[in-house]
Amino acid sequence: MEKDTVRLIPLGGVREVGKNMLAIECGQDIIIIDCGVKFPDEDLMGIDLVIPDITYLKQNKERVKAVIITHGHEDHIGGIPFFLREINVPIYGTKLTLGLISCRLEEHGLAKQAELRLINAESILDLGVFKVEFFRVNHSIPDGVGVAIRTPQGLIVHSGDFKLDQTPIDGQVVDFAKLASYGEEGVLLFICDSTNVERLEYTPSEKKVGETFNQVFGKAKKRIIVATFASNVHRVQQIVDSAVKYGRKVAVVGRSMLNVVAVSMELGYLTMPAGTLIEIDEISDLPPEKTLIITTGSQGEPMAALTRMAARNHRQIDIEPGDTVVISATPIPGNQKLVSRTINNLFKLGANVVYKDLAMVHVSGHAGQEEIKLMINFLKPKFTLPFHGEYRHLVTFAKLAQNMGMPKESVLITAIGDRVTCKDQQVYLDGRVPSGSVYVDGLGVGDVGQVVLRDRQHLSKDGIVIVVLTVDKQKQAIVAGPDIISRGFIYMREAEELLVEAKAKVDTALSKVQGDKFTEWAYVKSLIRDSLSSFLFEKTKRRPVILPVIMEV
Amino acid sequence: MEKDTVRLIPLGGVREVGKNMLAIECGQDIIIIDCGVKFPDEDLMGIDLVIPDITYLKQNKERVKAVIITHGHEDHIGGIPFFLREINVPIYGTKLTLGLISCRLEEHGLAKQAELRLINAESILDLGVFKVEFFRVNHSIPDGVGVAIRTPQGLIVHSGDFKLDQTPIDGQVVDFAKLASYGEEGVLLFICDSTNVERLEYTPSEKKVGETFNQVFGKAKKRIIVATFASNVHRVQQIVDSAVKYGRKVAVVGRSMLNVVAVSMELGYLTMPAGTLIEIDEISDLPPEKTLIITTGSQGEPMAALTRMAARNHRQIDIEPGDTVVISATPIPGNQKLVSRTINNLFKLGANVVYKDLAMVHVSGHAGQEEIKLMINFLKPKFTLPFHGEYRHLVTFAKLAQNMGMPKESVLITAIGDRVTCKDQQVYLDGRVPSGSVYVDGLGVGDVGQVVLRDRQHLSKDGIVIVVLTVDKQKQAIVAGPDIISRGFIYMREAEELLVEAKAKVDTALSKVQGDKFTEWAYVKSLIRDSLSSFLFEKTKRRPVILPVIMEV
Repeated sequence: MEKDTVRLIPLGGVREVGKNMLAIECGQDIIIIDCGVKFPDEDLMGIDLVIPDITYLKQNKERVKAVIITHGHEDHIGGIPFFLREINVPIYGTKLTLGLISCRLEEHGLAKQAELRLINAESILDLGVFKVEFFRVNHSIPDGVGVAIRTPQGLIVHSGDFKLDQTPIDGQVVDFAKLASYGEEGVLLFICDSTNVERLEYTPSEKKVGETFNQVFGKAKKRIIVATFASNVHRVQQIVDSAVKYGRKVAVVGRSMLNVVAVSMELGYLTMPAGTLIEIDEISDLPPEKTLIITTGSQGEPMAALTRMAARNHRQIDIEPGDTVVISATPIPGNQKLVSRTINNLFKLGANVVYKDLAMVHVSGHAGQEEIKLMINFLKPKFTLPFHGEYRHLVTFAKLAQNMGMPKESVLITAIGDRVTCKDQQVYLDGRVPSGSVYVDGLGVGDVGQVVLRDRQHLSKDGIVIVVLTVDKQKQAIVAGPDIISRGFIYMREAEELLVEAKAKVDTALSKVQGDKFTEWAYVKSLIRDSLSSFLFEKTKRRPVILPVIMEV
Repeated sequence: MEKDTVRLIPLGGVREVGKNMLAIECGQDIIIIDCGVKFPDEDLMGIDLVIPDITYLKQNKERVKAVIITHGHEDHIGGIPFFLREINVPIYGTKLTLGLISCRLEEHGLAKQAELRLINAESILDLGVFKVEFFRVNHSIPDGVGVAIRTPQGLIVHSGDFKLDQTPIDGQVVDFAKLASYGEEGVLLFICDSTNVERLEYTPSEKKVGETFNQVFGKAKKRIIVATFASNVHRVQQIVDSAVKYGRKVAVVGRSMLNVVAVSMELGYLTMPAGTLIEIDEISDLPPEKTLIITTGSQGEPMAALTRMAARNHRQIDIEPGDTVVISATPIPGNQKLVSRTINNLFKLGANVVYKDLAMVHVSGHAGQEEIKLMINFLKPKFTLPFHGEYRHLVTFAKLAQNMGMPKESVLITAIGDRVTCKDQQVYLDGRVPSGSVYVDGLGVGDVGQVVLRDRQHLSKDGIVIVVLTVDKQKQAIVAGPDIISRGFIYMREAEELLVEAKAKVDTALSKVQGDKFTEWAYVKSLIRDSLSSFLFEKTKRRPVILPVIMEV
């Protein structure tokens, strides 16, 4: 690589692209933007988290200078503990972002090793050949920033996750002057949040949700319970403001909500009059119409507080008829049924449930098409790279850019591991690096791969049938078994006949085994597997995992 | 039960309520409306179908007079083959409905036993004490009807699945005069489709989708591929009409699409100029801009034709850059990720993908709030019973009815198995009958229950670890093993150390077994299970199924 060539490499993505980890390299320097996790699809059975494969960074460990975090969402910070165990470099972030990272590091017992460096929107960092600046953006968590990186090839602007909220809760409107000045200066490449590019309009302001809260809270006669994303501190602020307006005390439940509220209050991102916040234990001392509970569980997650309240097994909260429950969130794809189950359960308890189908209790944190166009017109970039969402979003972004008059070649559609090369005022794809996903299951990082996952999928569908026998090698005879045991296949106590027939099939198969063949276990096992699998399929149209086990005495 | 008391019993539901099977009984007569299946949620691992538990009907077999089918969707007809094996009574339906039922019965080898009786919207049936009439409704399948049942207690009207399309494709506007006359006559109970009650407006006409087809097809430069629900014959008609308008020949792929097109053409529900329909094999003989393919796979179902085309493994169709693919459907909750994967794959092949986020390529077949209100104002029922959707929909329906001035007690919120009693001009809940869900897995009907499902869920999360040993009972000694085998737990070849330690744990546990205890297998097994499960959890934070197997020589 030539000395001043700049390369960008997306290494991790929420779905397919470089959303949660992007490396930028030039000469002897590599900087990294964001270090997130993604959450497993349901076919990744039993997997807890998916983190980026950082083989390439480990191979170039001594060149890695810093990690810059744009905001405190899990898909941007959740990979840090795993990353730091391999490559311990300084981590830059704004105050709230570092606060949330600290929580995460403490959970992993890594708080001491990590070197966290505070920045704000006015900071300027010298990181090797890179000069890095920041600009404030709006998003569904406070204190988010975009990043402007001066490189030997020119200015690269990274939007972070953003929307352009003209009436943000914290009053921090995006610094349009700064963006315009980058545009004047000349932007080589604009790396843009494309999550919401299928939304044709402008994403509504967070403030809209506050108006709904006032309407709903104003009418509520008994207790109010509001579930939302813990990290949406502005949402929590609006809930609190509306609670105060209608004379209610506020209690908080759910581990992540308690964490975020504590951190945000400590750091000044969440404010409320003294005496507003009460302990959950105190809530029963007050009349219901004087209380409001903020909780986790807006996604119907099985262990979250609201889910447990809805199922009547929350330790502290019983939902009463007439209580108002607001689900201030939209179900993430894949969670619809869980959320629906929670809503049904709440209705069954007699609650007045307010959710996004019926009222504007949620707005997105990502820019719609109109905001993306505005950004492009501010920055006037020569090249753009959409980096959030799925492939469909990237293509829709590309069409939008072309509609604005940008040439086809100026939009870069990348996949994880692609090398995006900036050279001679051009930006283009040029080869790949080792990359991919690493699965975290319990304490194991990377020890569950395709073989194990395929087994889990197979097991989940039709269960397992185990055939055990003990063989005396010298006598060339079966001395115990074959026994057949199953799990997840059929209710055995009611399938005795099938079991007897299955055992007969195995016996018949084994009777064919003569002399020397007896010690060829692979042969005997495949005989058992074949005879049993065709028999069981014929009888049940199911294909359990069949596992022959032969013991030798 | 008194002679002229009428009872309604919801027996099966798409989600929770009586959508896909409703029994109505009076004296010696029972009639049944609809006989559907529901599709399993993902936690019902490996289950193919869920059918209603008809224990109550089997107990009252001689009283069952007839099954009336409102329309030909799977969730209204799919249970018929299972039902007929237990209770063989006449089945009434309109022409297309019976055509689709015949297909289903033939697949199950039951075509000969079944007694199918044709009705139309003008038919009047005498079924014991019940006099049954019909009225045309609009829905996402042609030839749907609602049912009006004259009973000793008064008139009961059942909407079927409906919308009120003012510009239906087949010109069959709902018979408002008939509905109004029922209203004049006096309706005791209105059983109403509440699936779309969360839609605040009027559901758009099916014709709107045809306008989008004209816009999209008019601009398409190469081949067009449209995926939709096979049973939406009006949608298929509009696709064909627009294809003809733009000079394209039409080919059909996908088993269910081929079935429905054949049946609908044969029965006259789908029409097209001669020579329009071509075989899929002929398509490559024509220039792409002269062809259109109608296909299954609008839900991203793994084996469906569009899904396979998108993944480049369809035997006959290769998608080329510039082809237009229209997904004329909305993802059913739970299918979003599958649909999204298909869209991503299609974009990767360079197709121009048109889907509901970007254009109006789908409308619902169910009435929104405005249509439900219209129906209620036509019928002026004394009582209403919403019967489609989830609990949340029932409650929202109840609120809507109350907003229209109906008293709270006049809306009946039911669950499967509830007895809804009509007596002395009143309708109220009064006890329950045996009821529930029966799982179909392969050939097994009801042989997979909670134990097996729990095992499958457990297996899917962390796999299974099997410990096998052979014991000589007389010598009170282990003569082979313990061996440890796993599936879906961890990649064993890379976990040798863990395996060695685990074996040592089992050995230690077994060494404590003395004398007589040796023959207490339950005791030995629990020793193994306990020692291994705590060891593995500590080392991996996973909880596989642990299955000790002891053989005896």
